[in-house]
Amino acid sequence: MTERTVAILGSTGLVGQRFVQLLDGHPWFRVTALTGSDRTVGMSYEDGCHWRLSSDMPSWAKHMTVVDTSPGLNAEIVFSGLPSTVADQAETEFAKAGHQVFSNASAHRMQEDVPLLIPEVNHDHAALIKPQRELRAWDGCIVTNCNCTSTGLTVTLKPLQDAFGVKRAFAASLQAISGAGYPGVPALDMIDNVLPYIEGEETKLQTEPLKMLGDLVGDHVNPASIAISAHCNRVPVSTGHLVCVSLELESPATQQEVSDAMESFMPPDVVSELPSSPDRVIMLRRESDRPQPRLDQSAGHGMTTVVGRIGDDSLLNIRYVVLSHNTIKGAAGGSLQNAELALAMGFI
Amino acid sequence: MTERTVAILGSTGLVGQRFVQLLDGHPWFRVTALTGSDRTVGMSYEDGCHWRLSSDMPSWAKHMTVVDTSPGLNAEIVFSGLPSTVADQAETEFAKAGHQVFSNASAHRMQEDVPLLIPEVNHDHAALIKPQRELRAWDGCIVTNCNCTSTGLTVTLKPLQDAFGVKRAFAASLQAISGAGYPGVPALDMIDNVLPYIEGEETKLQTEPLKMLGDLVGDHVNPASIAISAHCNRVPVSTGHLVCVSLELESPATQQEVSDAMESFMPPDVVSELPSSPDRVIMLRRESDRPQPRLDQSAGHGMTTVVGRIGDDSLLNIRYVVLSHNTIKGAAGGSLQNAELALAMGFI
Amino acid sequence: MTERTVAILGSTGLVGQRFVQLLDGHPWFRVTALTGSDRTVGMSYEDGCHWRLSSDMPSWAKHMTVVDTSPGLNAEIVFSGLPSTVADQAETEFAKAGHQVFSNASAHRMQEDVPLLIPEVNHDHAALIKPQRELRAWDGCIVTNCNCTSTGLTVTLKPLQDAFGVKRAFAASLQAISGAGYPGVPALDMIDNVLPYIEGEETKLQTEPLKMLGDLVGDHVNPASIAISAHCNRVPVSTGHLVCVSLELESPATQQEVSDAMESFMPPDVVSELPSSPDRVIMLRRESDRPQPRLDQSAGHGMTTVVGRIGDDSLLNIRYVVLSHNTIKGAAGGSLQNAELALAMGFI
Amino acid sequence: MTERTVAILGSTGLVGQRFVQLLDGHPWFRVTALTGSDRTVGMSYEDGCHWRLSSDMPSWAKHMTVVDTSPGLNAEIVFSGLPSTVADQAETEFAKAGHQVFSNASAHRMQEDVPLLIPEVNHDHAALIKPQRELRAWDGCIVTNCNCTSTGLTVTLKPLQDAFGVKRAFAASLQAISGAGYPGVPALDMIDNVLPYIEGEETKLQTEPLKMLGDLVGDHVNPASIAISAHCNRVPVSTGHLVCVSLELESPATQQEVSDAMESFMPPDVVSELPSSPDRVIMLRRESDRPQPRLDQSAGHGMTTVVGRIGDDSLLNIRYVVLSHNTIKGAAGGSLQNAELALAMGFI
Repeated sequence: MTERTVAILGSTGLVGQRFVQLLDGHPWFRVTALTGSDRTVGMSYEDGCHWRLSSDMPSWAKHMTVVDTSPGLNAEIVFSGLPSTVADQAETEFAKAGHQVFSNASAHRMQEDVPLLIPEVNHDHAALIKPQRELRAWDGCIVTNCNCTSTGLTVTLKPLQDAFGVKRAFAASLQAISGAGYPGVPALDMIDNVLPYIEGEETKLQTEPLKMLGDLVGDHVNPASIAISAHCNRVPVSTGHLVCVSLELESPATQQEVSDAMESFMPPDVVSELPSSPDRVIMLRRESDRPQPRLDQSAGHGMTTVVGRIGDDSLLNIRYVVLSHNTIKGAAGGSLQNAELALAMGFI
Repeated sequence: MTERTVAILGSTGLVGQRFVQLLDGHPWFRVTALTGSDRTVGMSYEDGCHWRLSSDMPSWAKHMTVVDTSPGLNAEIVFSGLPSTVADQAETEFAKAGHQVFSNASAHRMQEDVPLLIPEVNHDHAALIKPQRELRAWDGCIVTNCNCTSTGLTVTLKPLQDAFGVKRAFAASLQAISGAGYPGVPALDMIDNVLPYIEGEETKLQTEPLKMLGDLVGDHVNPASIAISAHCNRVPVSTGHLVCVSLELESPATQQEVSDAMESFMPPDVVSELPSSPDRVIMLRRESDRPQPRLDQSAGHGMTTVVGRIGDDSLLNIRYVVLSHNTIKGAAGGSLQNAELALAMGFI
Repeated sequence: MTERTVAILGSTGLVGQRFVQLLDGHPWFRVTALTGSDRTVGMSYEDGCHWRLSSDMPSWAKHMTVVDTSPGLNAEIVFSGLPSTVADQAETEFAKAGHQVFSNASAHRMQEDVPLLIPEVNHDHAALIKPQRELRAWDGCIVTNCNCTSTGLTVTLKPLQDAFGVKRAFAASLQAISGAGYPGVPALDMIDNVLPYIEGEETKLQTEPLKMLGDLVGDHVNPASIAISAHCNRVPVSTGHLVCVSLELESPATQQEVSDAMESFMPPDVVSELPSSPDRVIMLRRESDRPQPRLDQSAGHGMTTVVGRIGDDSLLNIRYVVLSHNTIKGAAGGSLQNAELALAMGFI
Repeated sequence: MTERTVAILGSTGLVGQRFVQLLDGHPWFRVTALTGSDRTVGMSYEDGCHWRLSSDMPSWAKHMTVVDTSPGLNAEIVFSGLPSTVADQAETEFAKAGHQVFSNASAHRMQEDVPLLIPEVNHDHAALIKPQRELRAWDGCIVTNCNCTSTGLTVTLKPLQDAFGVKRAFAASLQAISGAGYPGVPALDMIDNVLPYIEGEETKLQTEPLKMLGDLVGDHVNPASIAISAHCNRVPVSTGHLVCVSLELESPATQQEVSDAMESFMPPDVVSELPSSPDRVIMLRRESDRPQPRLDQSAGHGMTTVVGRIGDDSLLNIRYVVLSHNTIKGAAGGSLQNAELALAMGFI
């Protein structure tokens, strides 16, 4: 496979930094452009970026010059870590100009012809790229990944939806501050405190999983008919979104059956063979007090979904707790995996 | 009213310290004994107690000598901040010896003839003291308050149960570390982390509210028929238990009706006139991001329940977030208020 | 004493909020104007201010309309919680227009004719107001209080300077995030982390105490000749600046002598009788592990300086740890006390 | 080199877990015994150990049976993560029985014939093993590594001592909670708080570096004549001890000279070729706000000392901030490196 050129839009932000980190040494992709805001354009990436990751900034990135976020970059594939406010227009322009855009932003997620992908869940939805290009008369395309809290929930709903059917879900999240970017949440709001509200988050968690768990029928997706109630909270944790889940299944199942369905869950080969796919999609922890953000965030290099506390629910059928790395699987890593998928399936 | 003598069992622990603090200057009660473990017996309270509150230790307490936790103390009323492991036997012995025991421990809560009280919710259940004394042939009695997480949930369910009936409740808690006492949770488990499990807590939250919201019929309580599903989490917050609640009501109600029911909720005069009763039982916050533990824990000197984010639920009918001070209303303050109630109602 | 009218500049910020809180029910001062930035001008204070304090916003403040930060307000006295960037010019304009300005900002602190005051330390420096007015031909004046980290250090140096003389000081601070205002420090920089740098802070801590501990000679202050080395760190604590101090004294003193000097320290009556002056200027804690920010920040309603761990130093003579409330004594409370002093001394 | 057998004493504690992690796949050592307390003896390591590290427990360790901490184990080399209270006697017994003991405990550190080693600083002191064996008539020996806070300070003092001579040092630490083991510090003491005291720590920091920087003369070490004043604080950080340092040098040096001395510092080949030695002993960060515990703890897999903020000191000559990983370089990793050194130098 020949190496593809890629650009990172919004490369100095938290998600942008994760893209830079994850693309270091990538077997299929080579970074050829890093874009930034007016403040940083023209600076070296090293000078323009307040690097917030504990691994060192890759040396190839340090001396790249940050460029403006405009189409025409020498890059076939474009990863977008842009804030939602600018993503809508900018990503559209890039796709229109022929770039293949893989976006973390929420702007395009729920549009009918835009794939909202988690490869392990709905790799077949990548086929929406074709009608999208026809409809919009584009050479490029826009592919999105979901909100970082939806990721863990949706990955775990998938095997249960397949095996038992899911009717209703209750989800209460305890979300990490890195989900809000940088500078993001003020420290004064987070030291010795919890914020019981994240703007727009509950709606996302109540709708995005339905699209991803829906059926691709011809040129569009019939969303799954699952009713979800979500309570979203911000907690003083740097990384790792935890979600407490209670489910009503179509066909009630035992703890053991649910555990088996999750643990044996395997995506198709085209997915499991992607460079960014983890060895295990879902890892079960048997201890009573796991998953925990600090201990479990790095499972599968941040690409594995960690589940614990599977048990009977006193109100619905079954319950569990799920943890997902919010800036890797839930953001840059997921987006990267989506691009790998589109490439492996021949859509780009 | 003549001043009553009181003892505090387990006075050097976190809940014991709150009792000492709250009883400082109390109009009805005077502390005559402070008990402790073998390690501290014989020491002055100042020397035996690692005081963890930000207000100063009351000067009258400093020089009291810590005594053994055995009946026969010169104290009519006994407040127990004992750990559950020793509370069962010790509290029984004190009640048998004629002391009126008001306990925070879980040991006796669910026994049929033991009142489990939140004055604003079920002051009438205090009447169980009489059949308890008869049945057990005691001069004393045991009165309990509920688990610190059940407090906020139950206080808010009460006006809704009265006005609309409650059928099902989903509750996800974000609980403060002071709920685990001192030393309690290791810092290594709480810095940059969340624990998705608290031993025994979910069961308490699923059962205690039903007893408190039940009807006193003759000598026993018919528990309310509400199905509750609880997910309990420990978060890096020092004080204030937050619970996200979704409810199915018997008669569906609007946000406005639910808000009105909570805000207009008034307990009977015998309760609202107690020294420890707050001016407002429930305070509603209209901001989108409240209640927050650090900002709202002290409402009504820690005795007011703070509610926010009342809204429609996509799965059940209604949802809200509730915060309660876990070591005041949810522990020592609640217990103190129970004793005041029993005194005001003439049971002790 | 007739009530004086006061305005708060930058009233919606963290320091501004503390002014509002501390002026609630003040015996001498009545708030007649609250100013804010363009974004908030014209809004009610309730709507324009994201209130971050755990006590409720005073009701009189809620419905005041936020006005522009320009001279001509109906207010004799002006408290400034403005950010340094705008304080320089704005405060000058207010003073020129005849307002008596009491400022937290660093802009004017080190100017020769501007008093830099901690009443307990150098109340006599208030006399600089007169030459300042003459020199600048103003009816108003500018009086400043020091940086919030200098406060605790300087208060404790004062009795030691008086009793033994101080030659050299080593100071390492562990500073709270509220010192950076709101939004201030990003949570991602503070969860599970320490920042070993605060812009400009070390220089302030090395120079401001010298001016305050200096001698007023005629129309100017001869700074004290103490050499200070300061290391400033930001730690994940909401309130309370802790400073580790080692000192070389002119006349070496024992631990007991140092303790005695601090504990017996009493300001002159004109200071101790001010409404905001605490009962005790310095409180000594004897426990080995105090002061601690969470437990000791509220001593003397945030106006008392708390000292612990007084001992011999292996390099210089003596050492101790000092804690001061950074947004009360170190900011709004100190400024308020300065205005009270100027009034009591007849300078305004 | 033939593989040596090793035992880990106190293997279920935090330091013990680090030993297990670091010995996974070690080229020279193979773990043949894991010891624990009475509570865990006879259990599998997986069951007996509450694993607190974010990497998975190595599979070879899971099924090893925890054994009693008594000599006679099938292990030539013994790593001790024992608490100080039991280390003194236990380590002596193991050494007497012929085991080569590498200890983290403080018990034996300051004994004249016991090497206190940081290979990059004083590898030659390993030669004390010989007189120790003669003096005590042992086949085994005891080698110690220093307190986790002394590590970073001493590593940075070494090149400065060599190049300029060090006369006096002021050190203020901000130490991570993992330094206190598990359960260690209660969360209630650390959320929104700082502890300005760690028992015994300041004395260690004032004495251990002197032994390590001293000269080996015949059979004993002449300690360096440096006067150190240390203030030790515990901060709410999980990993990474930060120390603010000010120094008086024998021959005053510029910032640049100090930076050069640190950056060019290279240990002898026998040290730099050890499997656990990092590529760079000291890494300089040029940013104004580094090192930071969360971002820099993992430099060189936790074996590199990270320095920043080198500058002139207003009181002494030079100042900087140093960060060291307290459970790797400062504990298990340092001990492991010491054993590698002793082996490479032929002492064991």
